[in-house]
Amino acid sequence: MKKYLQAHPWQIIEERFDPHLNKISESVFSIGNGHMGQRANFEEGYSGESLQGTYVAGVYYPDKTRVGWWKNGYPEYFAKVLNAPSWIGVKVRIENQRLDLATARVEKFQRILDMRTGLLTRTVVATLADGKKIEVESRRFCSMARGEVGAIAYTLTALNFTAEAELTLDVDADVMNQDSNYQEKFWDEVSKDSFEDGVIVTAQTKKTHFQVATGIRYRIQSQGAWVHGKKPRVELREKYAGHIVPVTLDQNKPVTVFKYAAVLSSLNHPTEKLTGNCLAVLNKAVDDGFDALLNEHALTWEKKWDECDITIEGDVEAQQGIRFNIFQLTQTYTGEDERLNIGPKGFTGEKYGGSTYWDTEAYCIPFYLGTAPPRVARNLLMYRYKHLPKAIENAVKLGFNDGAALYPMVTMNGEECHNEWEITFEEIHRNGAIAYAIYDYVRYTGDASYLTQYGLEVLIAISRFWAQRVNWSEDKKKFVMLGVTGPNEYENNVNNNWYTNYIARWTLNYTMESIVYAREHAQDDYRRALEKTKLNEVSEIANWKTIAENLYFPFDENRKIYLQQDGFLDKVLTTVNQLPVSERPLNQKWSWDRILRSCFIKQADVLQGLYFFEEDFSQEALKRNFDFYEPMTVHESSLSPCVHAILASRIGYYDKAYEMYLRTSRLDLDDYNNDTEDGCHITSMAGTWMSVVKGFGGMRIKEGVLHLNPFLPKQWTSYSFRLEFRSRVIKVMVSPAGTELKLISGGPLVVSVNGIKRELR
Amino acid sequence: MKKYLQAHPWQIIEERFDPHLNKISESVFSIGNGHMGQRANFEEGYSGESLQGTYVAGVYYPDKTRVGWWKNGYPEYFAKVLNAPSWIGVKVRIENQRLDLATARVEKFQRILDMRTGLLTRTVVATLADGKKIEVESRRFCSMARGEVGAIAYTLTALNFTAEAELTLDVDADVMNQDSNYQEKFWDEVSKDSFEDGVIVTAQTKKTHFQVATGIRYRIQSQGAWVHGKKPRVELREKYAGHIVPVTLDQNKPVTVFKYAAVLSSLNHPTEKLTGNCLAVLNKAVDDGFDALLNEHALTWEKKWDECDITIEGDVEAQQGIRFNIFQLTQTYTGEDERLNIGPKGFTGEKYGGSTYWDTEAYCIPFYLGTAPPRVARNLLMYRYKHLPKAIENAVKLGFNDGAALYPMVTMNGEECHNEWEITFEEIHRNGAIAYAIYDYVRYTGDASYLTQYGLEVLIAISRFWAQRVNWSEDKKKFVMLGVTGPNEYENNVNNNWYTNYIARWTLNYTMESIVYAREHAQDDYRRALEKTKLNEVSEIANWKTIAENLYFPFDENRKIYLQQDGFLDKVLTTVNQLPVSERPLNQKWSWDRILRSCFIKQADVLQGLYFFEEDFSQEALKRNFDFYEPMTVHESSLSPCVHAILASRIGYYDKAYEMYLRTSRLDLDDYNNDTEDGCHITSMAGTWMSVVKGFGGMRIKEGVLHLNPFLPKQWTSYSFRLEFRSRVIKVMVSPAGTELKLISGGPLVVSVNGIKRELR
Repeated sequence: MKKYLQAHPWQIIEERFDPHLNKISESVFSIGNGHMGQRANFEEGYSGESLQGTYVAGVYYPDKTRVGWWKNGYPEYFAKVLNAPSWIGVKVRIENQRLDLATARVEKFQRILDMRTGLLTRTVVATLADGKKIEVESRRFCSMARGEVGAIAYTLTALNFTAEAELTLDVDADVMNQDSNYQEKFWDEVSKDSFEDGVIVTAQTKKTHFQVATGIRYRIQSQGAWVHGKKPRVELREKYAGHIVPVTLDQNKPVTVFKYAAVLSSLNHPTEKLTGNCLAVLNKAVDDGFDALLNEHALTWEKKWDECDITIEGDVEAQQGIRFNIFQLTQTYTGEDERLNIGPKGFTGEKYGGSTYWDTEAYCIPFYLGTAPPRVARNLLMYRYKHLPKAIENAVKLGFNDGAALYPMVTMNGEECHNEWEITFEEIHRNGAIAYAIYDYVRYTGDASYLTQYGLEVLIAISRFWAQRVNWSEDKKKFVMLGVTGPNEYENNVNNNWYTNYIARWTLNYTMESIVYAREHAQDDYRRALEKTKLNEVSEIANWKTIAENLYFPFDENRKIYLQQDGFLDKVLTTVNQLPVSERPLNQKWSWDRILRSCFIKQADVLQGLYFFEEDFSQEALKRNFDFYEPMTVHESSLSPCVHAILASRIGYYDKAYEMYLRTSRLDLDDYNNDTEDGCHITSMAGTWMSVVKGFGGMRIKEGVLHLNPFLPKQWTSYSFRLEFRSRVIKVMVSPAGTELKLISGGPLVVSVNGIKRELR
Repeated sequence: MKKYLQAHPWQIIEERFDPHLNKISESVFSIGNGHMGQRANFEEGYSGESLQGTYVAGVYYPDKTRVGWWKNGYPEYFAKVLNAPSWIGVKVRIENQRLDLATARVEKFQRILDMRTGLLTRTVVATLADGKKIEVESRRFCSMARGEVGAIAYTLTALNFTAEAELTLDVDADVMNQDSNYQEKFWDEVSKDSFEDGVIVTAQTKKTHFQVATGIRYRIQSQGAWVHGKKPRVELREKYAGHIVPVTLDQNKPVTVFKYAAVLSSLNHPTEKLTGNCLAVLNKAVDDGFDALLNEHALTWEKKWDECDITIEGDVEAQQGIRFNIFQLTQTYTGEDERLNIGPKGFTGEKYGGSTYWDTEAYCIPFYLGTAPPRVARNLLMYRYKHLPKAIENAVKLGFNDGAALYPMVTMNGEECHNEWEITFEEIHRNGAIAYAIYDYVRYTGDASYLTQYGLEVLIAISRFWAQRVNWSEDKKKFVMLGVTGPNEYENNVNNNWYTNYIARWTLNYTMESIVYAREHAQDDYRRALEKTKLNEVSEIANWKTIAENLYFPFDENRKIYLQQDGFLDKVLTTVNQLPVSERPLNQKWSWDRILRSCFIKQADVLQGLYFFEEDFSQEALKRNFDFYEPMTVHESSLSPCVHAILASRIGYYDKAYEMYLRTSRLDLDDYNNDTEDGCHITSMAGTWMSVVKGFGGMRIKEGVLHLNPFLPKQWTSYSFRLEFRSRVIKVMVSPAGTELKLISGGPLVVSVNGIKRELR
């Protein structure tokens, strides 16, 4: 854990430059707008340790799979988030010295990410080798109002000299992914061009043939006046175009470059119009100017915060942490485009590849349901609906048939990317989460139209998968599910993972209910779904019913707890507090063999099941299982603590709930797992939000009614959160005085608080 | 399965050239002598599909591990069998046309491997593009009498022309492994030289710094007279040296090149003397001449066959098959060098890397015990003894301590090479096989000196491993062993694999017995072992005893069978004959997921245990388990059928035994598994020998006495085998008239045949 950032309710602040922390800060200070984003790399370049990252949503590359030993059924490639052409370059050369913080003496350094307005500011005073002292101030944002536009205001002030300088303003498509499997570059040049005050480079990905046009224009201002000076030198290379602009740096007279960028991809524009449209977007941005762009950007953020802000009084770090999570989630996914999803690193790193894990359904959808209009979550559901044919193909590849679907563990376009057999083939609970998200959406929004129009097909295909994936055990006289990996990935290839069996049975039942609902309430939809899926209403449903009624669940009669899997009680049952601190995290300190055989849990999947299906269990059952599993859980998945926080809140373990909240909310700000340099843990940030809203706030939807059951952690003075719920925005404020509710927008609503109904107007 | 080779009792014969079969033939026609060997690549080169392979025993390269996803505990590298500098090149150019069977019209082609003499002969008639018709006859061997010497007699006859030709006689160290993980070459040049009638190249492996000097000299003969003609052109390149020798090819007048090679490695010579010694060996070979070398080579083979031949009357294919197996094993490992071992592909291919698997202990040692003096098997045991410190290190890496040893799954120098967690970390039964081989050696040879001097340390270290690897299950009130993969690799990460638990308990008991034995019979050895291992005679032995007495074994009370692992009865229990032929082999047709969940067995590990510990079980128990497991076994491991053949023989299932024998004996000759092109399945060949000797012959050693209990498969007229046993060579002949025994050499011996003792003189 590192604590080097300053606490502030709305800002992330770094006060000095430490090269060893640079990659972490590059992640934390990332900016994005759902359409594109980037790590906090320096505009002037940096020869020290850095992970260069510019990302364009939906643009990926299928890197050839690298494995030690091939297993039948593995995918041919792993879809990588692409490091895309960079538009941020403002390289600075002063009398043949390049400005580079790796070689200059950095005397002052400050980086501020203002989350309220989405603006990244950096101020540096550096002394070059020959003693020239220069101040740099850079302000940068990716416009939330115009997804394809980014802008930089980069100001240089010569503090103790006057000299000629050169600024290189460029687009660099000659970039690569650090995690390329075979050290290949993934971009080819399509075209490039230079014009009076800018350049444009259009590049195309190999194999996938996505095109991205990146255009930049610039303006230079000195002491408030535009500089129209010497002609730039044009530099054109393969996949690169730049202008080298001579400027005079007069002592103490700031020179500012405004660099505008437009980044358009062939996802949204026909390739033949890409360059033209790019220039049009770019020109409009230049015409409007930096201040106007920044203003509309900040206004858009203001609106976003109105929907989703959480305030915490009495604990600035907690306040900062929760806002950072909401900020990152909001800039990763805006819900405008049903082809996009929430990558595990968002726009903050390239690790893991793929854009979609079960994280989206289990963690992110509740966040977007609670903080954005229903279409955002609906788009995430549509994404999976559109991938249904590929999920069916994927199942066929593994030996399933008749329309059974296995959604991929990791995907970009619906095809599986992952290649570890124990995950790719066995971590099939993801299918359950995808079914559950449909239920979650309908429950929260009350909108059953998605269910009957689209969801039903998905549910039928997933139920078919479960029906084929179980088998009858003559020995147990029950249906069993063999060879699975649950959410607790510290167990592999187990039999009868309780969570997976539970969500499988739930899916079968929910599918059968949904069929009845659709038959009664949406006959056209129902008939169409029947036709498309060729469902046999008699034999298939009868079979599902038999399975649902006869599925096996491992249970310990002594302790009255659900068993994580068959044979779990054969382990040496000990607790995390018996482990020496020096042996943690286990995933860094122990061999895989030892981890697998131990009782220690990465994320407790029985508890995940109790969280999803809380209403099926008594308070005592929740407690018993929590008491058994929580002490064995090492929380080495970023997705783990939030579920524990919610359950702990539910059963009145408030201190435990708060402890779990702390683990999740500042995970990246404090680099808790020593891996933030690879990027932020975007999807688990949704879990932080859930910890507050579903945990401390006790928010639930039951029979269409919003229920709240809040408590105030003793460490806080008060807190508040906002909820989007059925066309209203509701503000919930919790203080020692009790729970106050305010209807920010929308019509009257009845809300249940601590079991008592209140009407909001 | 392919049937393109001619049946013959002593020869392997290919009668025509099929480019699609060439890589298979390259494997099958491989030659070697324990010190070095090579695939049947053509001397003149070949531009078609080919796997070039020249191998020098013990010379390997640690190729950087390639995995998709790293797991803690994985080794940094995978030791590869090295494609070494080639000495076979006799490239032929006739008036600027290169002789290349890929481009010439091949009119006649015959390849014969004479197993009796170890000579590879190839006769070709080919027409070049311009109509020149030429005959080639090549004879080649790696001397069994001089491990460092190889020789080729290569004869060219111009059939319809007279022309000038050039022969290139070279050493080529600029070679690579086809399975290089990162497309790297593994050799650097140390030196090269050219002299009047030959060249020498010394090359060194990267990282491991093995040096190999390869020298060649040649003589050219035309119509019985030595040709001393035009001076050769010398070609020297990086890692390459060759002479280009002009010769005149007169129509119908054969020209023969005798090419002699000496291949010396730094394993056996100080590097500073390597080149000098190489030349000395080479010169001696040239002085003695091809015929004398061939003669002594053939005589050595004759002696080998005297020790290990098996004859089969009435079935030429079976005869050829068994001899091929014995031939390949004998040329792979001669037992002279305790640093060497038996690679899975021997000198016939580079696949799998490593040289040592548990195959050596479980399959090869019985073969060498039965067919060679005890020192051969003893050297194989010493190999593991010398690796004991590394096996202890390996265990430490995985979290074990206090002198526990886990031998590697795959190794060259004692370090683990393999990198699949379910095998590397979990296929720990290998440790048991290594212990068992000590027992097997002592039982067969009666030589307990190995046990007390060396074996005891190994046994103690392995017992320590088992003692730490099990854990107490409060639930079962037994010790259990979690997370293992048995010999049946179609199950991974299971609990309580019966075979592994059984061999673990056996090891504990055998170690305790051996301690008592050493204490009583070899006190000095005992004291030394105690000191080295720091064994606590009280607490450790007490602990082992407790574990051995309380270890859990899964058992089906209904069927009275041992269960392969916990939960095996939850599977759908079906049989291989229910599988459509089109779905086999499963490892090519099914996803890994489906294979893991099915009941189908790659090699039946319960039966492996019954084979090892046959005397612990009643005939009825053997039958019951065989009847249960055999029908589920797909034998997709080349090591599987032999164990079934032996057990089937034991319980009187003679047809099944014969069927199993057929599967193993011609595995490579008929390319049964469609993978012989990668190399022959050397280690499983020992299983074929066991099928005959332990299966049909019923050979066992009980209390120091050789027992035989033979039956004659009805498909055969008679068969015979020879056994090395306690300084005797015994010939066993089985015919309808009964079993005849002959003492070929050594003093009188009492042998039990069908339970009746006979004295041989």
